[in-house]
Amino acid sequence: MRRRNLSVVLGAVAGHGPLSRPRSRALSRADVAGRVGLTRAAVSSLVDELIGRGALVEGETASEGRVGRPGRALTVSDEGPAGLGLDIGVTHLGACVVDLRGEPRVWRRVERANADRPAGQVLAEAAALAADAEAEAAALGLRVDGRVLAVPGVVPNEPGGRIERAPNLGWHAVRIADHWPDPDTVPEPENEANLGALAEYWNAEQAVETFVHVSAGAGIGAALVIDGQLFRGARGFAGELGHLPVHPEGVRCACGARGCLEQYAGQVAVLREAGLAQHGRVRAADPVALLAERAGAGHLPTLRALEDAGRALGLALTSAVALIDPDGLVLGGTYAELAEWLLPSVRAELADRVTVRPWTPEALRPSALGRRGPVLGAAQRTIRRIMADPTLLPAG
Amino acid sequence: MRRRNLSVVLGAVAGHGPLSRPRSRALSRADVAGRVGLTRAAVSSLVDELIGRGALVEGETASEGRVGRPGRALTVSDEGPAGLGLDIGVTHLGACVVDLRGEPRVWRRVERANADRPAGQVLAEAAALAADAEAEAAALGLRVDGRVLAVPGVVPNEPGGRIERAPNLGWHAVRIADHWPDPDTVPEPENEANLGALAEYWNAEQAVETFVHVSAGAGIGAALVIDGQLFRGARGFAGELGHLPVHPEGVRCACGARGCLEQYAGQVAVLREAGLAQHGRVRAADPVALLAERAGAGHLPTLRALEDAGRALGLALTSAVALIDPDGLVLGGTYAELAEWLLPSVRAELADRVTVRPWTPEALRPSALGRRGPVLGAAQRTIRRIMADPTLLPAG
Repeated sequence: MRRRNLSVVLGAVAGHGPLSRPRSRALSRADVAGRVGLTRAAVSSLVDELIGRGALVEGETASEGRVGRPGRALTVSDEGPAGLGLDIGVTHLGACVVDLRGEPRVWRRVERANADRPAGQVLAEAAALAADAEAEAAALGLRVDGRVLAVPGVVPNEPGGRIERAPNLGWHAVRIADHWPDPDTVPEPENEANLGALAEYWNAEQAVETFVHVSAGAGIGAALVIDGQLFRGARGFAGELGHLPVHPEGVRCACGARGCLEQYAGQVAVLREAGLAQHGRVRAADPVALLAERAGAGHLPTLRALEDAGRALGLALTSAVALIDPDGLVLGGTYAELAEWLLPSVRAELADRVTVRPWTPEALRPSALGRRGPVLGAAQRTIRRIMADPTLLPAG
Repeated sequence: MRRRNLSVVLGAVAGHGPLSRPRSRALSRADVAGRVGLTRAAVSSLVDELIGRGALVEGETASEGRVGRPGRALTVSDEGPAGLGLDIGVTHLGACVVDLRGEPRVWRRVERANADRPAGQVLAEAAALAADAEAEAAALGLRVDGRVLAVPGVVPNEPGGRIERAPNLGWHAVRIADHWPDPDTVPEPENEANLGALAEYWNAEQAVETFVHVSAGAGIGAALVIDGQLFRGARGFAGELGHLPVHPEGVRCACGARGCLEQYAGQVAVLREAGLAQHGRVRAADPVALLAERAGAGHLPTLRALEDAGRALGLALTSAVALIDPDGLVLGGTYAELAEWLLPSVRAELADRVTVRPWTPEALRPSALGRRGPVLGAAQRTIRRIMADPTLLPAG
């Protein structure tokens, strides 16, 4: 009960809703008591504990405009508790540290060709990047309380930190702890599409409660948020949008099936159709930036390739809408950066094909987070857990 | 708290799990206390209330085999509380009354061509059938405590008992109460695929917790059960399997889109391909029985039509598995009666196309309830509500 009340008080100070923007006016203890429906004495005891645990700080006086005795302003601490997010992509490594307000304080990103390298090598480099990011965070007075790693692969619903399969990295049955240099800092892996979707939910200006978040990188994943909760499926495999059969008799996919969406809207397919790749290889360090640049310059093969990819994506999303009936769809990951050229054809397909239920073009929108979504979600996941249970923080 | 304890005690007497088969040995008050972890005095008070509300009856002595003083056997009442289920199909009306054990005690089914008749006419006939069924139930000592109506259409997530759209009936925006003769017996509408799925979950010998239940009748619907709960989607439109685009450039569907599953695996399509329908019309009173008879007799066009339908269905179910990652798939409704001929090609498609996650052919199975599923689920829904909150029953 006290655990829950600690969470309620911390949430009231942080502001309504998930990781919402700071209030225009900070609250005092009395203000919090008024909002959460507990006595002032109870709230004061809870606030004392939250200050002791480093979650809240109390300023000198509350801000202007109040009638009566001014209370002292409570704010969520921007020092102390923090979450580390890591991100292993096919062409990069990323790290992010957020403070308890959910604000990113450290960003790291290095381009690195990770496909088909030994998992141990990639994970050792990720660990080094993580150590750098934690050191930078420490210099800001932040202490990392939890570590989550975004991976472009399937993480089954089971303990043990195992990645079942990350086809675009060439990983199979990789247990993070087996390769991580420091046993005290082993991160918990999670599918990057899932973390991108959670980041969207936690950070969107106007989040809907039930949505499908498409998270394109080298492959195409998706995540389902249902009533504000991530839905991972019976075994952790939900949201494999990239392997929906959009053209049943179509080309063979790396997964072994035919006509999968990834063969029509995946990065390799788009680059090939745009004439920017030979034999599945592209020389650009950032192929997505290259696509955006060519499309922006009016390069017709690129424009046509993106339009076709949008059509295939619209087909797959039609199936997602018919089955799941979401409030909305979000184009995340690299798709967010290509949204200008993808959206028209995706929306046209949805308009033509979603006929049984009401549907508006605006129900599909690009993510504001784009490629940063998964690593941000990974970092914020620790913060969300602390907000739900502040006793996870060491007592002061 | 007492409400919850009443439910726990009633559930313990009914046996573990949803509407499970009667125990081999009935429990006494002491047995129940031992199982639910409450004191004998508390359990006795709860049992008294449940007897007063007509939910439990207490026999003379518990059955054989116990050591020590024999207790009196408690059983869930087979008189008194009951649920009425109704079912409006394209070619029939159905009614079912179940007692508090979930056992069907009254079945009614009449063949009736309901498509494109005024909703008021059909609902008046359903009300007459309901009154007959309730009268028959009353003669058995049963009193109907709730009424649920299964419809082949979309029932939005909102109060008011409105059917948004039932395309195969030709209904649009029909509010049941506007057409029901007796304001005291207006049933609550629910999508028939949803009720079929719940019936499957409540009555299966070995139910899985997360599954997709395909419920074919004149159209093709599906319902998603996630962790034992029906998932209705953000607006109540989830599970529109019949309108997944399986052949994107394929034939035009009544919904306005192209290549919908219903055009390849729906009843009309199968009858046409089997050479059993002209201009979309078939003369048989029971077209599904006709298909089963022809297939059983080795009629090649029928066998081929069912195989093709199975292929299209396998394609759509591949998308469902990729997106939702269920433990299993169930073929319900009329598909259950045609399963012998559909299963091989559905399973072959799934085997070829579900490659990212482990999949076994047995994860797809036919429903044991078939066409009776929706009306049984409609009747049992009231019972499930009473089991969860016995104070819904009038106090004795």
